[in-house]
Amino acid sequence: MSSPDPPVTRRARPSGREARQRARATPPAAPPYLTRAIPPYELLSEEGLEQVERHADLLLEEIGLEIRGDLEAIRLWRDAGARISGEWRVHVPRGLAREIVRRSAPREFTQHARNPARSVRIGGNHTVFAPAYGPPFVSDLDRGRRYGTLEDFCNFVKLAYATPWLHHSGGTVCEPVDVPVNKRHLDMVYAHIRYSDKPFMGSVTSATRAADSIEMCRLLFGEDFVARHCVILGNVNVNSPLVLDGEASRVIRTYAAANQAPVCVPFILGGAMGPVTTAGGLAQCFAEATFCVALGQLERPGSPAILGNFLSSMSLRSGAPTFGTPEPALAYLAIGQLARRLGVPLRCGGNLCAAKVADAQAAYESANSMWPALLAGANFVLHAAGWLEAGLAMSYEKFVMDADQLGAFHTLSRGISLDDNGFALEAFREIGPGKHYLGSAHTLANYQSAFYDFELADNNSYEQWSAEGSRDQLERANRRWKSLLEAYEPPPLEAARDEALRDYVARRKQAMPDEIG
Amino acid sequence: MSSPDPPVTRRARPSGREARQRARATPPAAPPYLTRAIPPYELLSEEGLEQVERHADLLLEEIGLEIRGDLEAIRLWRDAGARISGEWRVHVPRGLAREIVRRSAPREFTQHARNPARSVRIGGNHTVFAPAYGPPFVSDLDRGRRYGTLEDFCNFVKLAYATPWLHHSGGTVCEPVDVPVNKRHLDMVYAHIRYSDKPFMGSVTSATRAADSIEMCRLLFGEDFVARHCVILGNVNVNSPLVLDGEASRVIRTYAAANQAPVCVPFILGGAMGPVTTAGGLAQCFAEATFCVALGQLERPGSPAILGNFLSSMSLRSGAPTFGTPEPALAYLAIGQLARRLGVPLRCGGNLCAAKVADAQAAYESANSMWPALLAGANFVLHAAGWLEAGLAMSYEKFVMDADQLGAFHTLSRGISLDDNGFALEAFREIGPGKHYLGSAHTLANYQSAFYDFELADNNSYEQWSAEGSRDQLERANRRWKSLLEAYEPPPLEAARDEALRDYVARRKQAMPDEIG
Repeated sequence: MSSPDPPVTRRARPSGREARQRARATPPAAPPYLTRAIPPYELLSEEGLEQVERHADLLLEEIGLEIRGDLEAIRLWRDAGARISGEWRVHVPRGLAREIVRRSAPREFTQHARNPARSVRIGGNHTVFAPAYGPPFVSDLDRGRRYGTLEDFCNFVKLAYATPWLHHSGGTVCEPVDVPVNKRHLDMVYAHIRYSDKPFMGSVTSATRAADSIEMCRLLFGEDFVARHCVILGNVNVNSPLVLDGEASRVIRTYAAANQAPVCVPFILGGAMGPVTTAGGLAQCFAEATFCVALGQLERPGSPAILGNFLSSMSLRSGAPTFGTPEPALAYLAIGQLARRLGVPLRCGGNLCAAKVADAQAAYESANSMWPALLAGANFVLHAAGWLEAGLAMSYEKFVMDADQLGAFHTLSRGISLDDNGFALEAFREIGPGKHYLGSAHTLANYQSAFYDFELADNNSYEQWSAEGSRDQLERANRRWKSLLEAYEPPPLEAARDEALRDYVARRKQAMPDEIG
Repeated sequence: MSSPDPPVTRRARPSGREARQRARATPPAAPPYLTRAIPPYELLSEEGLEQVERHADLLLEEIGLEIRGDLEAIRLWRDAGARISGEWRVHVPRGLAREIVRRSAPREFTQHARNPARSVRIGGNHTVFAPAYGPPFVSDLDRGRRYGTLEDFCNFVKLAYATPWLHHSGGTVCEPVDVPVNKRHLDMVYAHIRYSDKPFMGSVTSATRAADSIEMCRLLFGEDFVARHCVILGNVNVNSPLVLDGEASRVIRTYAAANQAPVCVPFILGGAMGPVTTAGGLAQCFAEATFCVALGQLERPGSPAILGNFLSSMSLRSGAPTFGTPEPALAYLAIGQLARRLGVPLRCGGNLCAAKVADAQAAYESANSMWPALLAGANFVLHAAGWLEAGLAMSYEKFVMDADQLGAFHTLSRGISLDDNGFALEAFREIGPGKHYLGSAHTLANYQSAFYDFELADNNSYEQWSAEGSRDQLERANRRWKSLLEAYEPPPLEAARDEALRDYVARRKQAMPDEIG
């Protein structure tokens, strides 16, 4: 069951009505991941960055971080030179956590997809967009808001597959609440494999489920390939402030031991799980994430990892978490600099919002999150599509709206082409003052690739827009996701591997009684 | 009628119900203009910037720019060393336009408001937000879309006055279509003066109307004060490509001669008024704007000016202008660098969009315009609130939505405070791992100023939001602008000056027959 390369899949060629449907539904070809030709934004000075590092060090050394219930992780840290106080408190000497990371964590790595053309490069000046993660609810204009099901889950996997601007299938794109909580991960991983050929994420709710996820990758990619290559990510939250739950630390170690990539994510709602001021939250976040990435390196030096962050602000009026606000944007920009100094890929959140419906609030807040994520040089953008209600709901409409926006960030990231064609001097000579460029040779040669065109934007006149029913973007998005699902065709999957995966899922499910979440 | 200082105005103190209403309607105090503590974004390298400058020079020297119908402007350029071909074509030797600007244009200047506390600093690391400019239509949720009237005009002046995040009253906030086209400017300038005490813009539709606008400032501020200080801006569009209409050039010269500031704005829809590629549009824009700023300096060296740009992309599907797209965003970032090298304040467009309603499209596109404008280091952001329909309509709802977003950019611009309070080390020591910060001394001390809180965002739970009527942001914005107008009170204006202004308006109106636009 081992193979030197991942199984190649080819798409069946559609014909007739299907082909036309697909042509309509398929936007311009996109690269498997985004490569930024524009520089990241440098918010803090060298001195400012050192201050943040110094404070992160202080937190790790003086106050320490507890790993509650994972003696092996404690042992790894003790052997690496940390002082242990009480049962679980790890005090890391100044600079040691960063040194461990620098010593062996890869600056960038490839996460392989079962379709090699979809493998993604994580780190450096590359950015990978993945759907929202974790919402228990789903919503759409027709059926409203409701608990997510496995059918919804599969739909979002299909939508991410059909969307050229999403590079990744994600993980828990919504909770399939109709499946017992201890068996969901099997159906989720299977759905990612079966309905997409993009890279994906595995379970993190327990070390056993993480191991299941990795085992399914071995069935898909072959054992040897998995031992040598990253094929799965696991998104692990820190129990901020300054606590790593033993199960979470075992999940980090499980992924690292298998040479797979934990995404280490402090989850800090400022004023609750961390101080209310940005510099403090930033130092805490950097300390916690570096600590977790270092733990993966202690488990298996050289294994891939991603340094994550999830920082949110709070409403003065209600104490509710808020998104798209300027404080987390500033923290993104700073943590991007810190991650580059450390030399480890960075995760940021994507199109985040607190809105209950995909309205102007949702869009402003989402754009206010995506701009700093991209300018921070984020390498892996989770929650890049679909996020609503502070992460409680996955919206079908917002999913396609956000994806449309992600396309624009591809163009933005290419920067300005300063070649002769870009400067168009011949066109200026041809046209001269006071005439228009609509029919010029230069315009005709460049017209089709010149401008990014939002699929869901209506740029028509008010009169035409009215005549067509005065539809807002929400209504247009409703049509869009339905047409994408209608045109969906699964990528082929070798029957023997599919069989092996189904068999694994069935056996594992049979071995456990159902647990209700 | 001259005065060494502008007339000081004081707000009458409201009481009782009015005071409560105002308290509700008045967000936290804001500075008279924004000062950026964060660095601008550096998109292009030194070499890239030189390439753009070289191409801009090439356009000005080889192809030239026509000033159609202003012999005095042609004479000024000839005397400055330009070669004139044909009747109107000005060929500017390489580097001369930039040299003229560098020689005398101020890097930054103050535009004085009649309330000195509202005067704005334009240039350097300062940013001034002004409402949308020019829409013939207005719209709101109750009455829909319709032609703008003087009543609408006054309403938007009042709203801008009531909004702490708008620093400027703007100019033609909407066209008062119910006033004859040759008399509108008088009513508009009077409305800015009467219903606000923030700085404002004058007429640019003819040199005579520009002169009227400046004359009204003399009545308000005193002749001596106006001679020595900038009190009014005039936003002048270039007739791109490479043509400056003689009336426009006279308007530039009229403002400059009076020591007031023309805002020189190439209006380039890529593929129509310029080439379809970004580098070409950028070089053209920079050439045209520099040429116009230089003309102001030739008219009166040392007079203030703003270098503007208005670049839009085009829909592949319809040829319609599009906004919030990545190409103009990139051009903003580059022109910001060019303006800094040149040493002249920069105008960028603000919350631009092509949407017909203030929905998700409007918000995504607007944010996609504002982020690059701010990061470009724009000093004067026109169209910062209310813009809809590619500039054809001024929306009451979008006005307050955009203003809410502008507040967040104030916070963003402050950057991260890296002092002891910001790093909150004592709070970490107090709380330790695994506990929450809600009641900590540090949280209580910082809570109220810690996070920007969007007024129009709903951050409540889905259940609460539903119970309150499932209102989207558009509906909340509808309530908001009405409550702002209801609570509006005009700033006091000295009776003698008001009288003089009214008298001037009446006399000028009487001197002309009505013209229909």
